[in-house]
Amino acid sequence: MYQQRIVIDGLQYCNWNREYFQTLKASGITAVHATAVYHETARETLSRFAEWNLRFEQNADLIMPIHSMADVETAKATGKVGIFLGAQNCSPIDDEIGLIEVMRKQGLLIMQLTYNNQSLLATGCYEKNDTGITRFGKQAIEEMNRVGMIIDMSHSAERSTLEAIDLSSRPICISHANPTFAHDALRNKSNDVIKALTARGGLIGFSLYPFHLPNGSQCTLEDFCQMVATTADMVGVEHLGIGSDLCLNQPQAVLEWMRNGRWSKAMDYGEGSVNNSGWPDALPWFCGSSGMENIYNGLMRHGFSESEAGQVLGENWFNFLKDGLEPQSKG
Amino acid sequence: MYQQRIVIDGLQYCNWNREYFQTLKASGITAVHATAVYHETARETLSRFAEWNLRFEQNADLIMPIHSMADVETAKATGKVGIFLGAQNCSPIDDEIGLIEVMRKQGLLIMQLTYNNQSLLATGCYEKNDTGITRFGKQAIEEMNRVGMIIDMSHSAERSTLEAIDLSSRPICISHANPTFAHDALRNKSNDVIKALTARGGLIGFSLYPFHLPNGSQCTLEDFCQMVATTADMVGVEHLGIGSDLCLNQPQAVLEWMRNGRWSKAMDYGEGSVNNSGWPDALPWFCGSSGMENIYNGLMRHGFSESEAGQVLGENWFNFLKDGLEPQSKG
Repeated sequence: MYQQRIVIDGLQYCNWNREYFQTLKASGITAVHATAVYHETARETLSRFAEWNLRFEQNADLIMPIHSMADVETAKATGKVGIFLGAQNCSPIDDEIGLIEVMRKQGLLIMQLTYNNQSLLATGCYEKNDTGITRFGKQAIEEMNRVGMIIDMSHSAERSTLEAIDLSSRPICISHANPTFAHDALRNKSNDVIKALTARGGLIGFSLYPFHLPNGSQCTLEDFCQMVATTADMVGVEHLGIGSDLCLNQPQAVLEWMRNGRWSKAMDYGEGSVNNSGWPDALPWFCGSSGMENIYNGLMRHGFSESEAGQVLGENWFNFLKDGLEPQSKG
Repeated sequence: MYQQRIVIDGLQYCNWNREYFQTLKASGITAVHATAVYHETARETLSRFAEWNLRFEQNADLIMPIHSMADVETAKATGKVGIFLGAQNCSPIDDEIGLIEVMRKQGLLIMQLTYNNQSLLATGCYEKNDTGITRFGKQAIEEMNRVGMIIDMSHSAERSTLEAIDLSSRPICISHANPTFAHDALRNKSNDVIKALTARGGLIGFSLYPFHLPNGSQCTLEDFCQMVATTADMVGVEHLGIGSDLCLNQPQAVLEWMRNGRWSKAMDYGEGSVNNSGWPDALPWFCGSSGMENIYNGLMRHGFSESEAGQVLGENWFNFLKDGLEPQSKG
């Protein structure tokens, strides 16, 4: 039964307000990884945390902050939606290694090493030249391992991603991307990456963002489930989750902040183009409160057992995060 | 027995290093309120937290961070020195109300509303005109009450202090200052303030900083105990603690940062003067590892019962903090 499941969405960046929290609650979702920052500095990140604190205070009947998987169990038991925060870029730590622990204590559970561009830590997936993990990047990986902050390489380039998998002493994730075998895009991941990631215990969350899918906004639920099934055949179902990349009700300004930050004077269209510069149309089977349940049922129609469908819908994320968020033991 | 006591020093700002942590451990102290910042902005405060995280990591055999009084009990049981962090000014929140909760979550348990000068929240004790609690200050007091961050008015002016006592729905503290009846100084507190503070459940920590004491560095232990006894007669022993203001091994640069921050082009000498611009000489009976024990024994020689001496040495701080650090209950 879907209603009994721990359901986790490994990435969303919707316009977070009370109405949307009600939609989330109605969806039966247990916990959502919410993007707190894209390009914000350490100081700006504090303001994003302050905004989230206010949302938690004002919507305490609907949502609760997640700092550990025990909190997810509390959310499930009390019928609230758990929210855990992450950064799509390493900007929250500025150039300071000690801010990894500071941000982790504040509740930043997941951090990408890059967002499309070269960062101080690694190379992003839109750069022409991928020079791998930087000197600071190696230190940051070790420190993230130590404090239990999850490394996410969703927007990173191939070499950097493979090096991060190798350098990290703990499994890492690609929270939201699809295999290039399903749709060839710079943001999607090669079989080499997916195999290396999962061989080390890592997790990939399948994206529902139309730019990452075969046939874009016309991608069917069946096509999506076929992609999941082929990946499961390749690396095993226990390494798979959902990271929907769902973005609802955001204004164009947020899309432009995501794509341009402060780094470009010219408009950068990311995965879009000058003639297709807006948000892509949402998938009709993944835009309201029944998206996760649709996938759950779709996977079972496609031949997954109910237990396997439950793993993909949230149990795998739960186990991955439970291990990954613990501070590293000494000795 | 001193060794069985919970001993708490309500303010120190020594040069924090391994050697000093060993001195602290040898002193039998259970927990110390350490000043993390004087004038640092929110961003700079994060770097101070990062430095403290590194100290906790590298000296885990000697010290541990305190976030609640349960941690103090753990420190006592494991023979470690607990450290809790505070700010001597409201600079860590910049101009943003939401940063109070952010800083509290990071481990900033105590914050002064002012440090000698006018701040965004209140008036400091060296200003000529004391205009009381500001508009932002009223909001900040309410928010500090809500999240369980202790309000400290040690360096604030009289009217501002009386208003803060009145506006706060929870008891506040003067972590480190002495009564003006013992030594008349701008940094010390009138009987009116001490009576109003304690009538509302607040606590005053007696300072060992020579500039706050009768006869400065020549103040005797007996003089100190007489001051404590007179205050106890006035407001009751349960409102009294120690906030030594002890500063050991700090370079002149730290004194200048305390006094001048970034606000003055001319050198400000604080409680010193152009001919007396350095650190005052420490008290011979309160500079090594036996200072707190000396006070404990001194108080008993002066007529305090062992139980009362234990209250002053730490039990009163423990009870005050235990109540004050809990987030405010709703409704």
